[in-house]
Amino acid sequence: MAAAPGPVHEALAGLALVDHHCHGAVTADLAPGEFAALLTEGAAWPGMSPFDTPAGVAVRRHCAPLLDLPRHAPPDDYTARRTELGWREVNRRFLTAAGAAAFFVDTGYTTHPLTSPAELAAAGGASAREVVRLEQVAEAVAARGVAAQEYAEVFRAAAEEAVRGPGVVAVKSVAAYRTGFALDPVRPPAREVTRAAGAWLAVGGRLSDPVLVRHLLWTAVDLGLPLQLHTGFGDADLRLHHADPALLTDWLRLTSGTIPVLLLHCWPYHRQAAYLAAVFEQVYLDVGLALHHTGPARCRAVLEEALEITPFRKLLYSSDAYGVAEFHHLGALCFRRGLADLLQERVDADELSLPDALRVAAWTGADNARRLYGQPAPEPARDPSERPARKV
Amino acid sequence: MAAAPGPVHEALAGLALVDHHCHGAVTADLAPGEFAALLTEGAAWPGMSPFDTPAGVAVRRHCAPLLDLPRHAPPDDYTARRTELGWREVNRRFLTAAGAAAFFVDTGYTTHPLTSPAELAAAGGASAREVVRLEQVAEAVAARGVAAQEYAEVFRAAAEEAVRGPGVVAVKSVAAYRTGFALDPVRPPAREVTRAAGAWLAVGGRLSDPVLVRHLLWTAVDLGLPLQLHTGFGDADLRLHHADPALLTDWLRLTSGTIPVLLLHCWPYHRQAAYLAAVFEQVYLDVGLALHHTGPARCRAVLEEALEITPFRKLLYSSDAYGVAEFHHLGALCFRRGLADLLQERVDADELSLPDALRVAAWTGADNARRLYGQPAPEPARDPSERPARKV
Amino acid sequence: MAAAPGPVHEALAGLALVDHHCHGAVTADLAPGEFAALLTEGAAWPGMSPFDTPAGVAVRRHCAPLLDLPRHAPPDDYTARRTELGWREVNRRFLTAAGAAAFFVDTGYTTHPLTSPAELAAAGGASAREVVRLEQVAEAVAARGVAAQEYAEVFRAAAEEAVRGPGVVAVKSVAAYRTGFALDPVRPPAREVTRAAGAWLAVGGRLSDPVLVRHLLWTAVDLGLPLQLHTGFGDADLRLHHADPALLTDWLRLTSGTIPVLLLHCWPYHRQAAYLAAVFEQVYLDVGLALHHTGPARCRAVLEEALEITPFRKLLYSSDAYGVAEFHHLGALCFRRGLADLLQERVDADELSLPDALRVAAWTGADNARRLYGQPAPEPARDPSERPARKV
Repeated sequence: MAAAPGPVHEALAGLALVDHHCHGAVTADLAPGEFAALLTEGAAWPGMSPFDTPAGVAVRRHCAPLLDLPRHAPPDDYTARRTELGWREVNRRFLTAAGAAAFFVDTGYTTHPLTSPAELAAAGGASAREVVRLEQVAEAVAARGVAAQEYAEVFRAAAEEAVRGPGVVAVKSVAAYRTGFALDPVRPPAREVTRAAGAWLAVGGRLSDPVLVRHLLWTAVDLGLPLQLHTGFGDADLRLHHADPALLTDWLRLTSGTIPVLLLHCWPYHRQAAYLAAVFEQVYLDVGLALHHTGPARCRAVLEEALEITPFRKLLYSSDAYGVAEFHHLGALCFRRGLADLLQERVDADELSLPDALRVAAWTGADNARRLYGQPAPEPARDPSERPARKV
Repeated sequence: MAAAPGPVHEALAGLALVDHHCHGAVTADLAPGEFAALLTEGAAWPGMSPFDTPAGVAVRRHCAPLLDLPRHAPPDDYTARRTELGWREVNRRFLTAAGAAAFFVDTGYTTHPLTSPAELAAAGGASAREVVRLEQVAEAVAARGVAAQEYAEVFRAAAEEAVRGPGVVAVKSVAAYRTGFALDPVRPPAREVTRAAGAWLAVGGRLSDPVLVRHLLWTAVDLGLPLQLHTGFGDADLRLHHADPALLTDWLRLTSGTIPVLLLHCWPYHRQAAYLAAVFEQVYLDVGLALHHTGPARCRAVLEEALEITPFRKLLYSSDAYGVAEFHHLGALCFRRGLADLLQERVDADELSLPDALRVAAWTGADNARRLYGQPAPEPARDPSERPARKV
Repeated sequence: MAAAPGPVHEALAGLALVDHHCHGAVTADLAPGEFAALLTEGAAWPGMSPFDTPAGVAVRRHCAPLLDLPRHAPPDDYTARRTELGWREVNRRFLTAAGAAAFFVDTGYTTHPLTSPAELAAAGGASAREVVRLEQVAEAVAARGVAAQEYAEVFRAAAEEAVRGPGVVAVKSVAAYRTGFALDPVRPPAREVTRAAGAWLAVGGRLSDPVLVRHLLWTAVDLGLPLQLHTGFGDADLRLHHADPALLTDWLRLTSGTIPVLLLHCWPYHRQAAYLAAVFEQVYLDVGLALHHTGPARCRAVLEEALEITPFRKLLYSSDAYGVAEFHHLGALCFRRGLADLLQERVDADELSLPDALRVAAWTGADNARRLYGQPAPEPARDPSERPARKV
C-alpha cells in the first residue's frame, strides 16, 4: 500500500498546504449521534454505525491519537473524549495538525453553527479566504423580495457586492445538486430569466430552475473570479450521473477564455475531469471529499487515477471538510501520504526525477492554488529543507 | 498481487459464506462446446476458445485440481475429465468447495436443466433459499391468459403467492435488461398499466414495456421483501449504460423507507453503486459475476473500488454463478482471497485493527445477508477459530 | 510499480509489434513550442509547459536517452537536441526503437506535413498498411461538388475506390467527434440521406450531420473491411461522454455478423469497451493513446482494467501516435512493459502458466491484428526465443 518513505514524503510532510475548498468546523459540542452523522454523506441509520465505514476507520486510526487515545480507539471512547476536550480544543488540535497555510472557505452551507473563516484560520494557525456560494446569494435575493423583471439585475448586484467582501477569492455553484450539468449551455435570454424568476419567486424555496441555474453560471462568468463547481460524489440530494463533469463540455467551450473553472471532488468521474483539465486551458480539478471518505487505504489509488493525464499544474488540493475538523486533518494527511507514496515510488523506479517530484508536490499542494487565485506566498523563494511558514 | 497470508485469510477461509444471489448448476453432462459457452457472457465464437479469457484461465488454474488434474490443465483435458466424472460428481465437488452455508437461488432463468435450490443445497452441504424473479411471474400470468384490465391484480396475486412459497427470501427484477433504469420513477396510474398490458398481451413475448416494468418495480415495493436488481455487466442482451444503478436515484428516493434494494454485480458501475449504498439507507450492493469473470488476478481490485466508500454493513457476497458449478466455487474463492488480501494488507499497515478486519470479513461474507434477509445463523455466538457450521 | 523482469518481459521485448492504428510523424523540424504542443491533446498554454504532464515526463525519461541525452533531461535541452539532429534522424531513431513489424496508418488527419505510410515504414524498418478515414472521403466528395441526390452513391463509389488502394486494410470513422454515438442505430432511408446531404452541401464544412454520420457508418458495413472507431479520450473537439462505446450497443446488435469493429483507445471507458468485446463476436479494442499519455507509471493499470474481462483474442496494440515519433516509441514501450509486468506477476503467482502468458503477449501484440486484418506473418512458425523479423 505504501512506498518506503523518502524525500518526497519529507517534503510533503513539511509543505504548508493551501486547502482551496473547505467549510467551517462546528462550534458546539456534538452529541455522539450528531458527530457520527457528520462522518458520512448519508445519515446515521439504525443498527449501522457511521464509524463502520472507510472514513470512520480512518478517524479511529489517525484522529484518535490526536485526542490522546490509542489508535483504533472504540467509537464510544472517541466521542466521549471529544466531548471531554470540548469543541474548541478539538478544532484547534485537528486544524493545527492539518498543516495548512490557508483555508479557502465556502461559507454558503451551514446546517450547523460553524466557525467563520477567520475563526477557522485562527484555530489552525493559518490564514483564510472566502468562497461565495452563488445559490445562497440568489436565494437571499429572493428571500428579501424582488420583482421578476429585476431579478437578474438585483442578483448580479448582490453577487458583485458579495465578492467585494474582504478576502473573497472565488465563487462557487452547486448546480450539480440543483439541476445537474445536462443543461442548455448558452446564456439564457433576459426574457426567459424573467419568466423563470417569476415562477420561482411565486413559490420560493431553493433555486433549482434550469434557466436560473444557467443564468447563475453565466453570472459567475461575468463576475470574473474563479468558479468552483461541485462535481461527482456528494450527499443523497444528488443525481450522481448528472454531476459528471463531462456534461459541462459545451459550456466550457462557450466560456473558454473567461474564468478559471475548478472541478471539485469529481470522484467517481475524476478521469473525466482529468480529460477536461487536459484539453481546456481554464479547467482545474481536485479530489477533495474523496480523500477522507476513501481514507488512507485508497486515496493514493484515487490520486493516481486523477493524475493519469492531468497536467501537473492543473491538480489542486482541497479537503472539502465540513463540520468535523477531523476531516480538515484527514484530508491533508491522505493527500500528503497518497501523493508522496505515488511520487516517491516513481522516483525510486527512476520514472521521475526527484526535483520534478518535489515540484509536482509543491505545485499541487499549494502553488497551483496560489497562482490561480492570485494569492502569492509571503516569501518569494523557498528552501525546501525548511518548513514553510503557514501564512498565505 | 497478494498480501502475505495472515489471520484474515484464515478467518475468511473458514467462513461459511452466504451466497445471496446465484443460480442452479446444470443437471446434465455438457458437451465440450456447451461447457465452454457457459464460461462466458458472450458465446462460443469460431476460432476463439472461451477458455482464452480471464475466467477460463481461472477455471484451468483453480478448478482443474478439484477434478484431479494439474493446475493450468489444457481445455481438452478439462472437459474430458468433467465428462468422465459426470455432472453429479462435478457439481458435488465444486459446490462443496464453495464452502457456503447457504445459497439464495434465483429460479427464474433456466436455459438449461438446472438443480433446484434444494438439489443445489444438498450437493453443496448447505441450505438454500429462493429468490423469485418477477418478470417470470408476470410472463407466466400473460401466458396463462388474462384480460388487460385484470393484469395488475392478477400479477400482484401471483407474485404474492410466489413469495409465500417455502424458503422465499427475496424477489428479483431484470429491469436492467428489459428497459434499463432510465425510467419515469413514479408508480404508473392504473389506466396506463391496463393500456400497456393490453398492448403487451396482444403480442406476448418478454415483458419489456416501460410502464409494465415500472409497475413491476412498484409491485415489488408492495410485496415487502428485499428486491434484488441486476445492474451493470451481463450478457449481450443488455445496454450496459442503461444498467448504471445511478439511474435509479429518483426511484430510490421515492421508495425510501420501504424495501431493501440489493444492487447486484454493478461492475463497471460499482463506484456508482457504492455512492448509492453510502447515501440511501435501503441500498446494498455486491460485486458478484465480476468476481469470477475478472478472476483472482483482479477481483481484489474490483472489491477495493467497491469498498472505497461503501459502509461495511452494506456489501454482500454473491457469486451469480449460473450453470457451471465451477463458478459457485470460483466466486467464493475470489471473494475470500480478494477481501482477505485487501483487509490483511490494511491490518499489516496498521490502517485497520485485526478485530475490525475480522468483523468486516464476517459481515460482508455472511452476516449482512443474514441480517438483511432475516435469516439468522443457527448458533448465536461464534468462535472464529472454528469452522462455522454450513447451515443457515 | 514493476514486477521483477522475467521471461514474459524478454518475450515482449523481442516481439515485433503490429501497431494497428497510428498516424505519420512530422516531416519538418519543429520549433520548441510546436513540439511541446504536440505532446498534449490540449494546446500549449501560457505559463504551463506541456512537458509538465505524465506524457512529458515520460518523454524526458524514456526518449531523451535515444537522443544521447541523460534521463530526465530538461525540456530546453531536449528540444535543442531534437533540432540539432533534424527530423529525419529523430524519426529514424524513435521509429526503429518502437520495434514494430508493421504500422497501420490513418492517413486522414494531417494538420502538419507527415510521413506517408511508406516513409513511416522505411524510417522504422517495418512495413506499412493504410487505414482510410471515411469522413475525409466524404468531405472530399463534397468539396469536389455533388448533387444531394447523388451524394450517397458518389460517396460509396469514392470509398470503394479508396479502399482498393494498395495496402488498405481498414476504414476508420471519427463519428465520436462529429456526433457522438448516441445515434439512431438504423440505416437511414435514402430520402433522409438526400435531404441531409442537401443541407450539408449547401454550407460545406465538416461532415457532422447525424443522418450522414449514420449513413457513413452503414457504408462502412457495406465496404466489408474492419472498421476502426475512435472512442473515449481525444482532443478538446470531443464530448467525452458521447464517445462512450457502450452507446454503440444497438448499432453493434444490428450489424452483428458483418464487419469487425475496432474500438480504439477507449479510456476512460475501457471497461465498457471490454464488456462489448466480451459479448459481441465482432468487437475488439485497444488502449492506444492512453498508453503514452498516462505513461509507464500508469499504463499497466489501464491495461489491467481493460483486460479484466476482455477475451485474450480481442485486445490489440496501437500507439495512436501522431506527429512526434516519440509517441510511436513510447506507446510500444508502455505496452510491452505494462503487459509484461502484469502477465509476469500472474505467472510468478502461479495464476497463469508461462506458455499461456507468452501466447497472450504474442496475440495482443501482433497476432490478433494479423488475424483480424488478414495480414499473416511472413514465416508461419515462430521460435519465441528468436527475435521475429520486423516485416508483416
